[in-house]
Amino acid sequence: MHNNGNGSSFNIAYVGGGSLNWATKLMGDLAYDGTAAAHVRLYDLDQTAAGRNARIGMRYAERAGQTERLRYTAEPSLKSALTGADFVIISILPGSFDDMAHDIAIPERYGIRQSVGDTVGPGGFIRALRAIPQLAEIAAAIAEFCPKAYVCNLTNPMSVLTGTLYKVFPEIRAWGSCHEVIKIRKLMAFLANRRRGEVAFGYRDAKVNVLGINHFTFVDAASVGGMDMMADYMAFAKEHHAAGWRESPIDPADEHARYFEDMNRVKFDLACRFGIAGAAGDRHLAEFMPQSWYLDENERWKFGLTPVDYRIRERTEKQAAAAALDAGAPLPPPAPSDEAIVEQIKALTGGPEHISNVNLPNMGQMQGLPFGAIVETNARFSGLGVQPVHAGRLPAALEVIVRPHTERQTALVEAVLAHDGDALLPLFLSDPLVAALSPDRAAAMFREMVAATMHRLPEALAKAGKAA
Amino acid sequence: MHNNGNGSSFNIAYVGGGSLNWATKLMGDLAYDGTAAAHVRLYDLDQTAAGRNARIGMRYAERAGQTERLRYTAEPSLKSALTGADFVIISILPGSFDDMAHDIAIPERYGIRQSVGDTVGPGGFIRALRAIPQLAEIAAAIAEFCPKAYVCNLTNPMSVLTGTLYKVFPEIRAWGSCHEVIKIRKLMAFLANRRRGEVAFGYRDAKVNVLGINHFTFVDAASVGGMDMMADYMAFAKEHHAAGWRESPIDPADEHARYFEDMNRVKFDLACRFGIAGAAGDRHLAEFMPQSWYLDENERWKFGLTPVDYRIRERTEKQAAAAALDAGAPLPPPAPSDEAIVEQIKALTGGPEHISNVNLPNMGQMQGLPFGAIVETNARFSGLGVQPVHAGRLPAALEVIVRPHTERQTALVEAVLAHDGDALLPLFLSDPLVAALSPDRAAAMFREMVAATMHRLPEALAKAGKAA
Amino acid sequence: MHNNGNGSSFNIAYVGGGSLNWATKLMGDLAYDGTAAAHVRLYDLDQTAAGRNARIGMRYAERAGQTERLRYTAEPSLKSALTGADFVIISILPGSFDDMAHDIAIPERYGIRQSVGDTVGPGGFIRALRAIPQLAEIAAAIAEFCPKAYVCNLTNPMSVLTGTLYKVFPEIRAWGSCHEVIKIRKLMAFLANRRRGEVAFGYRDAKVNVLGINHFTFVDAASVGGMDMMADYMAFAKEHHAAGWRESPIDPADEHARYFEDMNRVKFDLACRFGIAGAAGDRHLAEFMPQSWYLDENERWKFGLTPVDYRIRERTEKQAAAAALDAGAPLPPPAPSDEAIVEQIKALTGGPEHISNVNLPNMGQMQGLPFGAIVETNARFSGLGVQPVHAGRLPAALEVIVRPHTERQTALVEAVLAHDGDALLPLFLSDPLVAALSPDRAAAMFREMVAATMHRLPEALAKAGKAA
Amino acid sequence: MHNNGNGSSFNIAYVGGGSLNWATKLMGDLAYDGTAAAHVRLYDLDQTAAGRNARIGMRYAERAGQTERLRYTAEPSLKSALTGADFVIISILPGSFDDMAHDIAIPERYGIRQSVGDTVGPGGFIRALRAIPQLAEIAAAIAEFCPKAYVCNLTNPMSVLTGTLYKVFPEIRAWGSCHEVIKIRKLMAFLANRRRGEVAFGYRDAKVNVLGINHFTFVDAASVGGMDMMADYMAFAKEHHAAGWRESPIDPADEHARYFEDMNRVKFDLACRFGIAGAAGDRHLAEFMPQSWYLDENERWKFGLTPVDYRIRERTEKQAAAAALDAGAPLPPPAPSDEAIVEQIKALTGGPEHISNVNLPNMGQMQGLPFGAIVETNARFSGLGVQPVHAGRLPAALEVIVRPHTERQTALVEAVLAHDGDALLPLFLSDPLVAALSPDRAAAMFREMVAATMHRLPEALAKAGKAA
Repeated sequence: MHNNGNGSSFNIAYVGGGSLNWATKLMGDLAYDGTAAAHVRLYDLDQTAAGRNARIGMRYAERAGQTERLRYTAEPSLKSALTGADFVIISILPGSFDDMAHDIAIPERYGIRQSVGDTVGPGGFIRALRAIPQLAEIAAAIAEFCPKAYVCNLTNPMSVLTGTLYKVFPEIRAWGSCHEVIKIRKLMAFLANRRRGEVAFGYRDAKVNVLGINHFTFVDAASVGGMDMMADYMAFAKEHHAAGWRESPIDPADEHARYFEDMNRVKFDLACRFGIAGAAGDRHLAEFMPQSWYLDENERWKFGLTPVDYRIRERTEKQAAAAALDAGAPLPPPAPSDEAIVEQIKALTGGPEHISNVNLPNMGQMQGLPFGAIVETNARFSGLGVQPVHAGRLPAALEVIVRPHTERQTALVEAVLAHDGDALLPLFLSDPLVAALSPDRAAAMFREMVAATMHRLPEALAKAGKAA
Repeated sequence: MHNNGNGSSFNIAYVGGGSLNWATKLMGDLAYDGTAAAHVRLYDLDQTAAGRNARIGMRYAERAGQTERLRYTAEPSLKSALTGADFVIISILPGSFDDMAHDIAIPERYGIRQSVGDTVGPGGFIRALRAIPQLAEIAAAIAEFCPKAYVCNLTNPMSVLTGTLYKVFPEIRAWGSCHEVIKIRKLMAFLANRRRGEVAFGYRDAKVNVLGINHFTFVDAASVGGMDMMADYMAFAKEHHAAGWRESPIDPADEHARYFEDMNRVKFDLACRFGIAGAAGDRHLAEFMPQSWYLDENERWKFGLTPVDYRIRERTEKQAAAAALDAGAPLPPPAPSDEAIVEQIKALTGGPEHISNVNLPNMGQMQGLPFGAIVETNARFSGLGVQPVHAGRLPAALEVIVRPHTERQTALVEAVLAHDGDALLPLFLSDPLVAALSPDRAAAMFREMVAATMHRLPEALAKAGKAA
Repeated sequence: MHNNGNGSSFNIAYVGGGSLNWATKLMGDLAYDGTAAAHVRLYDLDQTAAGRNARIGMRYAERAGQTERLRYTAEPSLKSALTGADFVIISILPGSFDDMAHDIAIPERYGIRQSVGDTVGPGGFIRALRAIPQLAEIAAAIAEFCPKAYVCNLTNPMSVLTGTLYKVFPEIRAWGSCHEVIKIRKLMAFLANRRRGEVAFGYRDAKVNVLGINHFTFVDAASVGGMDMMADYMAFAKEHHAAGWRESPIDPADEHARYFEDMNRVKFDLACRFGIAGAAGDRHLAEFMPQSWYLDENERWKFGLTPVDYRIRERTEKQAAAAALDAGAPLPPPAPSDEAIVEQIKALTGGPEHISNVNLPNMGQMQGLPFGAIVETNARFSGLGVQPVHAGRLPAALEVIVRPHTERQTALVEAVLAHDGDALLPLFLSDPLVAALSPDRAAAMFREMVAATMHRLPEALAKAGKAA
Repeated sequence: MHNNGNGSSFNIAYVGGGSLNWATKLMGDLAYDGTAAAHVRLYDLDQTAAGRNARIGMRYAERAGQTERLRYTAEPSLKSALTGADFVIISILPGSFDDMAHDIAIPERYGIRQSVGDTVGPGGFIRALRAIPQLAEIAAAIAEFCPKAYVCNLTNPMSVLTGTLYKVFPEIRAWGSCHEVIKIRKLMAFLANRRRGEVAFGYRDAKVNVLGINHFTFVDAASVGGMDMMADYMAFAKEHHAAGWRESPIDPADEHARYFEDMNRVKFDLACRFGIAGAAGDRHLAEFMPQSWYLDENERWKFGLTPVDYRIRERTEKQAAAAALDAGAPLPPPAPSDEAIVEQIKALTGGPEHISNVNLPNMGQMQGLPFGAIVETNARFSGLGVQPVHAGRLPAALEVIVRPHTERQTALVEAVLAHDGDALLPLFLSDPLVAALSPDRAAAMFREMVAATMHRLPEALAKAGKAA
């Protein structure tokens, strides 16, 4: 897979290549970059969507005059997509939005509120039951068809799914990539500009030391243009703790913003309590804490709960937009996205080195969390591969909260892969969002949730829901 | 301190020697044993009580014809009690029952119910704030006056206080001793007798592998007379899960039993959920889980919440009984107590070896819990000292619950000894009993509780309550 | 396998049951004990020897009037011996004495002197190559035919072979048993008697804390009758460092004593250097250090190098003695041997608890050595199984020497089981006895040694010798 | 110390500022860089040398037209140099060349040959005894006068001295910098150019994954221009194993080359044996192995033993050259040196990120070596500080050799700082170079060596030599 020194093209297998989000970002970024040569093989259970994306991809390439270098094809099978791949990108939806609707609605009836429901809490747990077997299948195929490929996972729940890849195929060269951390980098750049009295820095100038687990990430050091920004951040968090803050106001008519943007109140509260800056969005951070902390009163904390019906409406719009692009509507103007994948690919193949926050098994980069658990820290991308940068340790009072999440995630992957249905309920009960219920009610909720998603589970696990 | 080979007498310093419970058990056991020669030096802030106990101790010795061997004195100072001591027993009450009343009543007003309130939860936390500085003072005195002495701590919260001894004086030869585990040994003996169809075994014949932390202890292997009893226990737990079980019924008029005895429902529930037998009493086990599990409905789970006013009444009775003994009332008939301390002392000085479950820093005896954390497992007492026996590891789903408790306990000791008041509130908030409250209400509760006990705290810590 | 409560008999499979040493000790001890009921199934590649031992076993049983309880049979296959076994004893000779002769003679031609050659050094390494596949086969058979059996390994090299059992069948309930440590217990008892001025104690009264790896074991705490004996030992070691010491002189005509007994000079030297008492015999301890330390001048250090021709002569004598017993010669007078196996069996099945030093994977009982490495410490035998007792840590300057031996042993087992011939030479070269040679000469020696034993090795390993 | 955002100048304290090597490289590089603003405060026990270097530094600055930005002063005391320092560079000679002559000559009389004698082996050990107290003094001064400064240690023995800095002042922001690894990067670039058939790459284009300990460093992954170079390297090593190889031949008249350059035979031999590329020079690598491997026959392995008299002659030449520069002789032509310090400083203060191999306490970046031991791996220099990049693990057969060196180094630092003279001899004896001697002769050698350097040691340690 490595550069053979004569500049030949790379094969990129895109699993979930009918995607309406990530695939188009990749297409735009590859075209914009203008230096990489790649054959992108789009594979999707929805072959029509993959075919549509292949056509759109070629449109991007054409506009950029890159058809010599960039090629997009829709592949009929996982095998044909993976064979000979230098890179694999995994971006799938585990189950449907209908499944996700159950993940949110059933707990709600039991009094458990979730802002996202795709990472931890009851929703994240059940989503993992659906997704782990799928990722296990992909990992096994990678082991067979392209064991040396670099593998970028974009699918949630990120920690358990990246863990699944490594559990099934320990030699895999995979990482999980998530862009939530960009938010705090933007804020750090804002603060640096404010200190300097001029707009000198963008978020790419903000270096932050990331530590934690996906969607429950923190930053304990930040530097912009050589200036240490942590004291500024902590003062800012204290100042705006009560009322919250955003760089620009949210348009109340903007439904997307209402559900996805926040006023940093959760982050500022965590900063005041633990002396460290939360890096992910408030809606993600809140789900790792007991209900009583933020989710019971999300309006007071000024972040939204994303309704699944909104996701469905949004998807319909995106599908229409993709169909239009396929039908010849004008492409968006050329510009790089916020995604790091093209930079990562170039760094791995001998281009400029790149540092991103990514999800990897803990090999020592995070003290205090178990060896082998999937953690999120910075990593160096270079011709030497993906190497985590040492990130240090969380404050003790926070580590006490993070660690059980990692232990639950590791145990969940092991239980699902071993088809050990009996192990699931005790793990489910130990989630802090679930802890608000008595174990009997929590078990009833678990049974309902498993029943609702049973058609997506291997038999052994489906039974677990009944037995529990 | 070691036996010099000529059978000379041991010096036992008893810190808290005015005790109405443990001290009298020691006196009875030493007299009953009839072989140990000891000078027991009773030290207590309440010198009158120590003097009274010294006189009672001599009465026990006289009745047993052991006045050549056994001597009891009340000591005027910690220094005089410790100097030259071969053994130190620590059994103190950190603060008063009035303090304990606040530990229970304030959380109750916030909706937090506690069955004991002396180990974890808000009550255990605040009690630790009072007790850690006291144990630190005793540890420093041991380091100065009898660094080679064996030290048996009987004071709660056991884990944090044993941890305090080691943190202040790492070379200390201390262990924490707790008899909660006898309950499950009795049950195992009952089951073995039932299997054999005859009363063949007592609890001393029941060998159990203990693992966990004090008052949240478990047993994953049990053997009586060479018979493996775990399958019997698990079947029994399943059978009696719904209704609970006791060997003999509780007299509804027996107030003590009502508050201290249980129907094993919590233990049986934990056994069904985690596949391991709970070893401590239900009222202790329940406090380590979220409110929603057992404490919200303790009557349904058939265990009592011990009211502090009952403790006060009970103490008054015991004081009266002690005064009567001091005045010549008949001593209780000679019989060994359930306490292991005399057997431990004899084993350490060359007598028969002895295995007890004790609290020690984790040196590897419990996998999965942090090195250095205070854990409870079996230990070998012999002329070689106190050596933990390897206990293995808790089931993953349970370890996820136990581990944060140990981490909180370790961090709490460090914070108090470092006078780091800022570290306290985040630790307090992370307790699963406290997690039922929003952080703002929990912080308000913390401030109230610290205010109520402020007169017992070092200044730096007392301030923390205000600042929080 | 556990006692079913009605006192039924145990099945003991003896692999290597034609043994001239251990098997007869077991027979004598079982008969002498008089309480255990057992069917001992002797299996040996040499079926004639197994049959002979079965008859001798029955003679012991008859003399003791135990034929109701004890039964001995020679088994035709490993499968028939193991099926239904409650206990398995493994005591085999890996290869022949001719092989062992090469293990000693070839290194000698290269200037490498070995006193035993069965544990570490070039001889121990090559013996391990022969033995690991044999033990792997036995472990696999145990996993198939009696997975719950307790397994006592008596075969050398003890560490690597016990490691092999666990590597092949991780759930095995095995330990390695070695009686070398009795020597220091006898010395401690001697010193205690000297201090007391009377013969009050035997070696069974000497409690010692054992730590290290098999044949390189140490004692850092010793207690006899409650008296701490370490200071006595250290003073004694210093006093006799130069001249050495033995309780009773060796008869110069006693060839066995000349090769197997020592004057404690190596032990005393190690004690003076590292502040800890060596527990194994000098001839074993010496082999773990560079040639330059003791083996270059073994006569000055007053211990012998055991010649293989003596072993062969001794075996001939033992065979004659066994044939005579089989033909009706008088049995030796009834007396317990020094072996602990019968006490261990009784403790595991509900009899009196027993503490022995045994070889087990490191689960935390020895700090400073790798987790999983086979270490030797005390362990508790009881109805709960075999549980190591925490042993602490070696002095830093000694740990630096011990640790690479454990790492080499672990890596050797892994390489042999993975048929990774390439990994062998680098490991061989890193042994301190081999380090006296340049790598080229050491590689030549390795090739010669492998060639000499090639007929006993799996093909993949035999090739390694050629390639190296 | 961090950039305050307005481009102000940095204070660099140079301890050992009279240095004839490193200081002049720094001066040249700062002038050549042309962007950094710095006040360099040179402190040396030899104040004359510091004064001379200050003047030379100003000459460099003048030539580059950088006198506005660069300032050099000689400081009268460690305190004045350190107060307000943003960076500290430590480059001292522990003792004199006369001391070093003893470090080499005494072991030589005992048959121990050393090629450098400043890292491990008897020479490195004794040098450490002299140097550790000096570095301890500097670390304490840094803690007092500039605790936030970044500290770059250039002094050997690098591992123990960097370890000393952290042991004395755990919060220090220090790393040890060594340029030995450049050699293998040059070779990798050579191989890449050869593959490409053109001179496309320099050593800065060669990315290598460094792991090990200082002067015993290895590379298990290499990438040049996106090409994986490890297979090329291994093939090259095999091809040139017997005869050795150099890019350009050594002039036999070039005495410096004779002592400092090698033919890569040791590196190629290690590569063939362990499957990994040695990164340091042969003369360094050889000293970590037993005498029998390379040093016994260094001529056959084609590397030199550096005689101390050559070092003395070379120093005289350098002193003359420095005096000439001070007197106005022409400066060398402007060009960057191979040293990374200026790039490191710029990266730490907000300039382009930089990756270097440096020596740091193991926080998890090297698996298999003890936590806290000083290891050498790549690290990221950025506004966030110095963060090690995860380096993985050495091959098992090599780790067995490296690990005891790290353990000895850690124990040595602890013993010297604790003035525990008794701990020294056992550590000394465990060095593989010393292992060729019997312990008695090794102890005699130790006493001689300590006697020769006694005037440089704290009293407690000096005594140890006598007692040993």
